[in-house]
Amino acid sequence: MTHARLTPLAQSLPANVPFVGPEAQERSLGRAFKARLGANENIFGPSPRAMAAMAETEHWKYGDSESIELRTALADLHGIAPENIIVGEGIDGLLGYLVRLLVGEGDAVVTSEGAYPTFNYHVTGFGGVLHKVPYRDDREDPSALFAKAAEVDAKIVYLANPDNPMGTWHDGAALERALDDLPQNSLLLLDEAYIECAPEGTAPALSANDPRVIRMRTFSKAYGLAGARIGYAIAAPELITAFHKVRNHFGLNRAAQAGALAAVRDQDYLTQVQTKIADARDRIAQIAGESGLTVLPSAANFVAIDCGQDGTFAKAVLDALVARGIFVRMPFAAPQNRCIRVSCGRPEDLDLFAAALPEALKAARGA
Amino acid sequence: MTHARLTPLAQSLPANVPFVGPEAQERSLGRAFKARLGANENIFGPSPRAMAAMAETEHWKYGDSESIELRTALADLHGIAPENIIVGEGIDGLLGYLVRLLVGEGDAVVTSEGAYPTFNYHVTGFGGVLHKVPYRDDREDPSALFAKAAEVDAKIVYLANPDNPMGTWHDGAALERALDDLPQNSLLLLDEAYIECAPEGTAPALSANDPRVIRMRTFSKAYGLAGARIGYAIAAPELITAFHKVRNHFGLNRAAQAGALAAVRDQDYLTQVQTKIADARDRIAQIAGESGLTVLPSAANFVAIDCGQDGTFAKAVLDALVARGIFVRMPFAAPQNRCIRVSCGRPEDLDLFAAALPEALKAARGA
Repeated sequence: MTHARLTPLAQSLPANVPFVGPEAQERSLGRAFKARLGANENIFGPSPRAMAAMAETEHWKYGDSESIELRTALADLHGIAPENIIVGEGIDGLLGYLVRLLVGEGDAVVTSEGAYPTFNYHVTGFGGVLHKVPYRDDREDPSALFAKAAEVDAKIVYLANPDNPMGTWHDGAALERALDDLPQNSLLLLDEAYIECAPEGTAPALSANDPRVIRMRTFSKAYGLAGARIGYAIAAPELITAFHKVRNHFGLNRAAQAGALAAVRDQDYLTQVQTKIADARDRIAQIAGESGLTVLPSAANFVAIDCGQDGTFAKAVLDALVARGIFVRMPFAAPQNRCIRVSCGRPEDLDLFAAALPEALKAARGA
Repeated sequence: MTHARLTPLAQSLPANVPFVGPEAQERSLGRAFKARLGANENIFGPSPRAMAAMAETEHWKYGDSESIELRTALADLHGIAPENIIVGEGIDGLLGYLVRLLVGEGDAVVTSEGAYPTFNYHVTGFGGVLHKVPYRDDREDPSALFAKAAEVDAKIVYLANPDNPMGTWHDGAALERALDDLPQNSLLLLDEAYIECAPEGTAPALSANDPRVIRMRTFSKAYGLAGARIGYAIAAPELITAFHKVRNHFGLNRAAQAGALAAVRDQDYLTQVQTKIADARDRIAQIAGESGLTVLPSAANFVAIDCGQDGTFAKAVLDALVARGIFVRMPFAAPQNRCIRVSCGRPEDLDLFAAALPEALKAARGA
């Protein structure tokens, strides 16, 4: 078999990773991070009930290919039908399936400059053509996204609310109004990975059967199960059913299904985590302020700190933090890349960040 | 978004499941199976060390996108380099990636009539055209497969050794000789999911750098971690690298990585399981014999029992077993569908099967 037997599309793709993970960075650095604040994981961890459910799992059995118990619990939580829900291998996995269903070679897709790279990876991977619009005031710009979608006849428009990497958000009612301008032939992919961290009213009050939208949710963020790789999408049954055409039917980890189910059933724990996240956001703002920096308002489990200069300077701050054992990340696109992005950690994680930030700024200013 | 916005390929695909899982069958039946002997899971379970490693996992962290520790341990086990190994979401997941890399719409792929349906699902899902050759003497027929590959210019030739659903196998040395007839432009996909259950010498002694072959292995069978969804492929580095073009880089469950690593390091436990599997195969043969039936020789963790008549009769036996709470499956294609396929269970599982089989045969004969 020669390399030339790859499909022409596969030949054209790069073999690189959207993100370099913290473990890979630790191997490059030759030591472990002291504070893991870069991947927007939930350092407060999952519900103890989820931990127990996972520990008790009979790992020798394949998981339920229909995820019935979990889909039923999620349907109850949201007041919708199980037929409106597909469970998948994290939002990353679901993004891949959705793009595969809709995007053929040459098809147009719209997203924001600097938005989630893994979505872009899937679009490129299936031969789609990305059209990007800039953020407006460090927020995604629905009007501009929908106008671009009309212009290029987009199959999908990607919009994260709250947004990653900035943490900014739109009020749900504003999004509902903006939807009037979504082209009839475009599907809005509403990435709500951080919605449980956001104020009441951030999620638009849309019918689960609204054919204009698919919403994606995850157990990786507020629910603290990033390692389990499990998320779900909410959409009209016709679109949900289409996932069965391409998904890996027995691809879900059995313990992840059990852990997610226990997590959904422990909404009290989620409430506790939401408080811890809000406290951590405040603390990060305080730490930034002590160094004369400002933060962007955040409805997510991380905060973007404006380092006050350009992307080169923010990168120097980031590198100096990483060199001090503090794992953080930063936005990719200008002018958002004047910021660094710090995940909500425990008080002890943020103490380490508080100690390192002034040194990192000093190092970056001297660089 | 209208359904018509799916890609033409996606529109053409059915939304059905290659297999109906045991949980789905239990929901249809309205009760739980008494013995779960249909999915070739390893009922003896994983190593206690794997269980412990999974229970201790910090589920809030994403997994290592490079699976370095696991790939290094596997490389040591096989005496190859980590660059020869890609870890993925079970063989099912890896099959999907491989097909996506190689098979474009209209490309030819060769497999056996009645072989693994999930492979076929992926080929169809990417628009490939399947060409099937019959089994010979209830075994896959390498010569016929490779001749068909030459005839249709196949991108991939699928061959499972040991075979599923029959449990039969080829000696590794015979496969090595047969490889001389593999067309230069075809890749042999050697599915070795059951290789740890097979006699020494069943795996061909091929270089991991041999560009003609990719081998797939799993933790779902002998290692007892089906629910974890983790497997790996061995191939030349050029082909392994290509997986990075399309794979879900952060798609692996962190606990699965930890469990697989602990399982690889506990080869003593694997040896114990191999003995239990061999004993269970003998017991299944004995049970069949007590009902006047014969079994096919098996190098896997299941045994095909020849029910002595046609597929209609075997299906009646299967249905009667299922009605009695015994979950088994059967081959899809004639004449192999004269058999039922029974997974290696614990003595108590096989006691239940032994009690049900005579009744099931009686019911089928009376039907």
